[in-house]
Amino acid sequence: MIRPLPSIVDRILDSYRSIGAINHLDGPNLPSRDAVVAIIDDLESVVFPGFRDVGPMDWDELSFSVSERLNRVCRALILELEKCLCFKYRVERDAPCGRAGATSSGSAGPNADSSGGGSESYPRLGECREEAERVTYELLDNLPELRARLKLDVEAAFAGDPASKSREEVILSYPGVEAVLVHRLAHELWTREIPLLPRMMSEYIHGKTGIDIHPGATIGDYFFIDHATGVVVGETTVIGNHVKVYQGVTLGALSVKKEEANTKRHPTIEDRVTIYAGATILGGETTIGADSTIGGNVWITSSVPPGSRIYNRPSDYIVRQRHREEVVDFQI
Amino acid sequence: MIRPLPSIVDRILDSYRSIGAINHLDGPNLPSRDAVVAIIDDLESVVFPGFRDVGPMDWDELSFSVSERLNRVCRALILELEKCLCFKYRVERDAPCGRAGATSSGSAGPNADSSGGGSESYPRLGECREEAERVTYELLDNLPELRARLKLDVEAAFAGDPASKSREEVILSYPGVEAVLVHRLAHELWTREIPLLPRMMSEYIHGKTGIDIHPGATIGDYFFIDHATGVVVGETTVIGNHVKVYQGVTLGALSVKKEEANTKRHPTIEDRVTIYAGATILGGETTIGADSTIGGNVWITSSVPPGSRIYNRPSDYIVRQRHREEVVDFQI
Amino acid sequence: MIRPLPSIVDRILDSYRSIGAINHLDGPNLPSRDAVVAIIDDLESVVFPGFRDVGPMDWDELSFSVSERLNRVCRALILELEKCLCFKYRVERDAPCGRAGATSSGSAGPNADSSGGGSESYPRLGECREEAERVTYELLDNLPELRARLKLDVEAAFAGDPASKSREEVILSYPGVEAVLVHRLAHELWTREIPLLPRMMSEYIHGKTGIDIHPGATIGDYFFIDHATGVVVGETTVIGNHVKVYQGVTLGALSVKKEEANTKRHPTIEDRVTIYAGATILGGETTIGADSTIGGNVWITSSVPPGSRIYNRPSDYIVRQRHREEVVDFQI
Repeated sequence: MIRPLPSIVDRILDSYRSIGAINHLDGPNLPSRDAVVAIIDDLESVVFPGFRDVGPMDWDELSFSVSERLNRVCRALILELEKCLCFKYRVERDAPCGRAGATSSGSAGPNADSSGGGSESYPRLGECREEAERVTYELLDNLPELRARLKLDVEAAFAGDPASKSREEVILSYPGVEAVLVHRLAHELWTREIPLLPRMMSEYIHGKTGIDIHPGATIGDYFFIDHATGVVVGETTVIGNHVKVYQGVTLGALSVKKEEANTKRHPTIEDRVTIYAGATILGGETTIGADSTIGGNVWITSSVPPGSRIYNRPSDYIVRQRHREEVVDFQI
Repeated sequence: MIRPLPSIVDRILDSYRSIGAINHLDGPNLPSRDAVVAIIDDLESVVFPGFRDVGPMDWDELSFSVSERLNRVCRALILELEKCLCFKYRVERDAPCGRAGATSSGSAGPNADSSGGGSESYPRLGECREEAERVTYELLDNLPELRARLKLDVEAAFAGDPASKSREEVILSYPGVEAVLVHRLAHELWTREIPLLPRMMSEYIHGKTGIDIHPGATIGDYFFIDHATGVVVGETTVIGNHVKVYQGVTLGALSVKKEEANTKRHPTIEDRVTIYAGATILGGETTIGADSTIGGNVWITSSVPPGSRIYNRPSDYIVRQRHREEVVDFQI
Repeated sequence: MIRPLPSIVDRILDSYRSIGAINHLDGPNLPSRDAVVAIIDDLESVVFPGFRDVGPMDWDELSFSVSERLNRVCRALILELEKCLCFKYRVERDAPCGRAGATSSGSAGPNADSSGGGSESYPRLGECREEAERVTYELLDNLPELRARLKLDVEAAFAGDPASKSREEVILSYPGVEAVLVHRLAHELWTREIPLLPRMMSEYIHGKTGIDIHPGATIGDYFFIDHATGVVVGETTVIGNHVKVYQGVTLGALSVKKEEANTKRHPTIEDRVTIYAGATILGGETTIGADSTIGGNVWITSSVPPGSRIYNRPSDYIVRQRHREEVVDFQI
């Protein structure tokens, strides 16, 4: 009655043969979740030196520590990006990466198996690796600019939350700041058309903070998300500068038709807009004009002009009080 | 003034004697959180081969890898399930597991300490272990069927989200898919009346994804949760096929009386229903008819017929614009 | 075109010199996230013996195990608290901890204590360490009282959730219980004016459970948060006894002006109040009177008297049914 384990293993292997689409057995390696976490950890330590690990060091130590981390990130990122690019070219061109058939080169080699015909459409041997290296170096070279922008995000958080006591507290403990950091990194990869890895980064930090920002979203300076949990920012959202968003805010799409995937489906939020907890703003045509305030739980599917203030009508509630067995209705 | 550490330890030990109900010192071992995580990790790797660990392998390697993982899961799961069953019988029958006292057998042995009376109500020595083994083998033997169902969930996610670029992306990074995978495993244990472990599994993935599905919930095929955070699905919920749910949706109970714990307290969602972000549907008598759409933030406590579309009335807001010191009200 | 890694490292080091406020290179060490997690794990194991690790032990083993854990917590907590206090005095007094009497004193010696002039305002050498030790011992000495209070929270969760099957299940798997445990620890440190660490503790458990309770919040006995995700409780909130709160509830501030940071900005919730999912209660002057019930999604910014029941008006929806190509409006 109880099937022995080897027989169960055989049934599972059979199911790998018969149930496709959720196996990944014969393509290139896919990026590793653990590697994503390690890369983010190291980059956080470089971006906010002295916060994520042991503190004060002299400049020599610091130089050594940064070099060590960047070397580690560099190696890991090239490896993971190469997997992403091999996956991308395989899907796009329906050909394994490194397959020859390539342009000029009719040259031999272990992977050279065709000559001519549709040449450009196949990635050269080593092409993915080269592109992975280029993107990695671009990302790392951009870290000083990233730090300059994150400083503004930290300022926005410190200024925007009366409960914050110091910038150190903000950097050590604000999930909104960490999620924006990871988004800005993931967005760099997204704009360079890297598949898989940016979404794995955004989902790692979504799991950690409850903030779900699609790596495609464009976000300006001084962005602050307070309390974090439940915020959703869709792929084609555009957010200006000095925007503040509270927990549970959705910047989403009206339609979910797959054929509209390449249109702008998510709203535009102009400069200096504040969106309070639980508000929902939907649609690619929807623009929240500059200097507007969107109240908590408000639901918006069309544009509002600059300077708007939109709130729920209060007191539209059933209000009853039990008082010495009497029930009276009253207004609040 | 400062009490020395050994004296603090003594006070704590005293409190273990005087403050009961939150100690677990004299019963059987309880299931381990770390073991729960390890079991889920291994089962995910078996269900989605090549996604959670290093990628492409030949069939020999794969066979070896699956055998190794299943062996590990098998050992761990039997151990944890045995703890759960010993706990269950101890609570239900108010007797330690393995206590003899059993019917016919007045036979000796190290744990035989009673003879006759109320015999059936005591678990035999080894009974928990045998049941743990049986349930474990049933669960593992069911993995191919589970894979077939998860393939449908992956399809639903890929088709249901315009932002998804590939099935690989869905499997690698969609929290909704991972939460449904864990739910389907936990529900298998739940239907076999295993206490503790199913809830520990659901809370592990709740913490990771923000999706809180009680293991008792019955969920059909092609189920997709987008954006994940804040979804709550109660114990007696019944969900049909092709249902789509967004972040912050609650399928909950109207009443929270403990004495109603054994009734159906949570709603029924029929086939092809879509429930948008933040909607709340409450009550065991509440049925959302097939092909209905429930708009965002809608609050429902009674049944709606098939084909319903329910939305909040728009523009019931206070809308003001500051414009050159003037404040004007307008409609949106 | 591709900058070599050493040159990238140099640019990053330059950015550490030019972009301030987000570096922490020359102050005292900051508390470590990993240490925070380890301290919480050990304290959970001491508070709920037999739940977080291997189960039943005899009293000798238990005594040994508790001693070992408390020793470890003691060492780690003193270290982290010392960092927090050095940070605090450095910020408050603008002087490194252990620095001599600054100003007047041109006196020698690396830590030369000074005698005269404004001396009190500078921390003595070793003062932070002494205070860290005192606070650590106070916290540990208070653990039996903490256990007595947590027992009441476990009771509230068990009684308040019809789906709960046993107190063991509650302690093993309810995120609301774990978040309250961590809050009660963090609040102890908060009331002793420790910076940084309490917020790191609350954000650790926020990330794990989706419950964001500021360590400054004052919370009475028998407190239960069901389903957890998205709950926000602000810094100056005061919560009475027997209060029950569901997912997505915000107890927040009306104003976010930094200059009002020292006022009571968050509401008061009196005894035996229940607040259903998604309700928002704002403002430091707002009091929810005892024995009140606040319905789901309700938005409250002013006080309500004891015994109030406040619900959204139902059926204010657009309801349509597609039925054989006809669209009919109806009431629910």
